[in-house]
Amino acid sequence: MTNSDPSHKEPQIIRTIGELRAAVSTYRKSDLTGKIGFVPTMGYLHEGHASLIRRSAAENGLTVLSIFVNPIQFGPNEDLDKYPRDEARDLKVAAASGASIIFLPTVAEMYPTKRVTTVSVNEVSDFLCGASRPGHFDGVATVVAKLFNIVQPDRAYFGMKDAQQVAVITRMVQDLNMPVEVVPCPIVREADGLALSSRNVYLDTKSRSEATILSKALAKSESWISEGTTAADLISRISSAIKGQSAIADIDYVDVLAYPGLTHLEQGKPLASIDADVLIAVAVRFGQTRLIDNKLLNPAKAGAIPCSAK
Amino acid sequence: MTNSDPSHKEPQIIRTIGELRAAVSTYRKSDLTGKIGFVPTMGYLHEGHASLIRRSAAENGLTVLSIFVNPIQFGPNEDLDKYPRDEARDLKVAAASGASIIFLPTVAEMYPTKRVTTVSVNEVSDFLCGASRPGHFDGVATVVAKLFNIVQPDRAYFGMKDAQQVAVITRMVQDLNMPVEVVPCPIVREADGLALSSRNVYLDTKSRSEATILSKALAKSESWISEGTTAADLISRISSAIKGQSAIADIDYVDVLAYPGLTHLEQGKPLASIDADVLIAVAVRFGQTRLIDNKLLNPAKAGAIPCSAK
Repeated sequence: MTNSDPSHKEPQIIRTIGELRAAVSTYRKSDLTGKIGFVPTMGYLHEGHASLIRRSAAENGLTVLSIFVNPIQFGPNEDLDKYPRDEARDLKVAAASGASIIFLPTVAEMYPTKRVTTVSVNEVSDFLCGASRPGHFDGVATVVAKLFNIVQPDRAYFGMKDAQQVAVITRMVQDLNMPVEVVPCPIVREADGLALSSRNVYLDTKSRSEATILSKALAKSESWISEGTTAADLISRISSAIKGQSAIADIDYVDVLAYPGLTHLEQGKPLASIDADVLIAVAVRFGQTRLIDNKLLNPAKAGAIPCSAK
Repeated sequence: MTNSDPSHKEPQIIRTIGELRAAVSTYRKSDLTGKIGFVPTMGYLHEGHASLIRRSAAENGLTVLSIFVNPIQFGPNEDLDKYPRDEARDLKVAAASGASIIFLPTVAEMYPTKRVTTVSVNEVSDFLCGASRPGHFDGVATVVAKLFNIVQPDRAYFGMKDAQQVAVITRMVQDLNMPVEVVPCPIVREADGLALSSRNVYLDTKSRSEATILSKALAKSESWISEGTTAADLISRISSAIKGQSAIADIDYVDVLAYPGLTHLEQGKPLASIDADVLIAVAVRFGQTRLIDNKLLNPAKAGAIPCSAK
C-alpha cells in the first residue's frame, strides 16, 4: 500500500485522537512492513509544507499530516489569534501532495485538561528564537512529543527554515529514545529568494519587497567567510547588509552557532578554519511581522552542502 | 504465546537498547494481538516487585522487566552509590516470577551523551517527596519516558508504595498521550506491616523494629477520620503516634492530599465529608535510611478500597 500516485485516493479527514489511533492501527495490521511518515504543521500550507508531504508520500506507505495551531508555543503577545487559517485550501494542498490522513484536532482534543507536563530541551533552546520567544520550544517539544505518541510514525518530516526547531526535536528524540527518524528537508523559497512562511501573508507590499534582504544577506556569507571573517565579523556584516538595504527592517537577532548543538563558536577564529556544520540564522521584524531565515554550511568546505541539509 | 507457566522458559537477558528493540519487534510480529507488559525497577527485587512481574505475566503475552539504578533521580547527597544491587539474585526472582525479558542497561547505554531533555510534571510533583527531593520526579518522569519509548509496552506496572510516582507517571502518560496503560498495584508488606522496600536492608535491628510505626500509624487513620478529624488534625495525630513510639524516627513529612492530583484539601473540613480519593503519606528517616509509606482511601466511604488502589 503506497501513495506514489497521490491522485488515486482522497485523504481521510480525522479530528479525534481515538479515530487517528484506530486508523494508524488498521494500517499497521494491514501492512507489517509498511512505514508511516508524519508531517506536523500549523496549517495555512504552502509549497514548503507540500514538499514535506510529497517526500513523506514517496518514502512511506502511509502519510499523516497534522494541522494544529498549537497555543502553547505562542507567547502572550504573539500572533496566536490572528495566525492565518484556511482549512478548505489546506485540504486541497494536502490531497494534491499525497497525504493519506489529515489530522485536524481541536485545542480541547489536544489539551482536554490543564496540562502540567512539559518536555524541555535545554542548551539547544538557549539562543536564537529560544532567547527571543521564552517558552516557545517547550511548547514545540511538548506538542511534538504528544503528536509522536498519537501518530507513532516511523519518520517525521520538518523543514530546515525552522532549523532550531529541527535541532530541538532531533535532540528530544535522541535523549528520550523516541522510535522515530527525524528527516530534515530543505528550505523552499520564492523566486526572489524569500523563504516560504505562512506568516508572509502578513507583509504589506513594501515589507514583502524588502524582506528579500534576509536571503540576500545570507547568500553573501560564503564569500565573506572566504575572505577570512570571524563569527563576530560575519554577524556584523550581515546586520549591516540588512540595515543598509531596508530602513524598516528591525533586527531581532543575527547569530552564527555550531549546528546542531547551537552553542557559540570559539571567538576570534576565522570561520573558514571550522570543519563542522555551522548555522547562520537571522530573525527580522517588518512591522508586526517577524521573519526568520538561515543558512547551514561547513565553512571549511565553502559551497558544499552539509550532511544535515541534504 | 503466553507466560502463564513461568517455569517453562528462562528469561532472555538483554543489555542494549538495540537488542531490546529487536526482541520486542520480533514478538510484535509473531503475535499481532499479543500484549506487552512492562515492569520498570531499580533492582534488588523483593516480593513487591515479584507481585508486579507475576501480574504482568498473567495479563500479557510478553513481560519486560527493566533493572536500572537511574542516576538522574538521585539528589547529590542521596544513596546512589550505595543503593543495593544483586544481579544474580534478581535474575532468579525475575525468572521465578515469569519475566520474559530482563533489560539491564548500563548508565552509558541509557545516557550516552549529555542529556539536555527533561520531562517535568508540575503540581503533582510539588509536595511530599517532590518537595523533599528536588528534581527527583523530573528524573523519574524522564527515565520512564525513555524506557516507555524503548520497550513500547501496552501496560506498565507500578507499586502503590510510591503513590506519588504512580500519580506523576499517570499524569505524564495522560498529558503526553503516551500509548500505554499505567497499572497501579497494591503495596506488599512484611507480616508486621512494614512496606517492602529495597532500602529496608539499610535498617539496623532497632530501626527495623521501630519502622513498623509507619504502617501502624497509617492503619489508625480510618478510626481517626470516623471521629471527625480534619486533615491538619490527622497529620498531627499521625506525627504524634510516630514520635511517641520511636525516639529515633525523624519525620520528613506527614501529609494528606487529594489523589491523584496531589493538591491540598480544603482546610478545616472534616475528612469524613470528602467523597473522593485521599492520600495519607509519610516519609520518616531512621538514621540515614529514609522510608516512605501511604494509605489511599475515600474518607466518606471509610474502609472501602478506592478505585485507584484496586
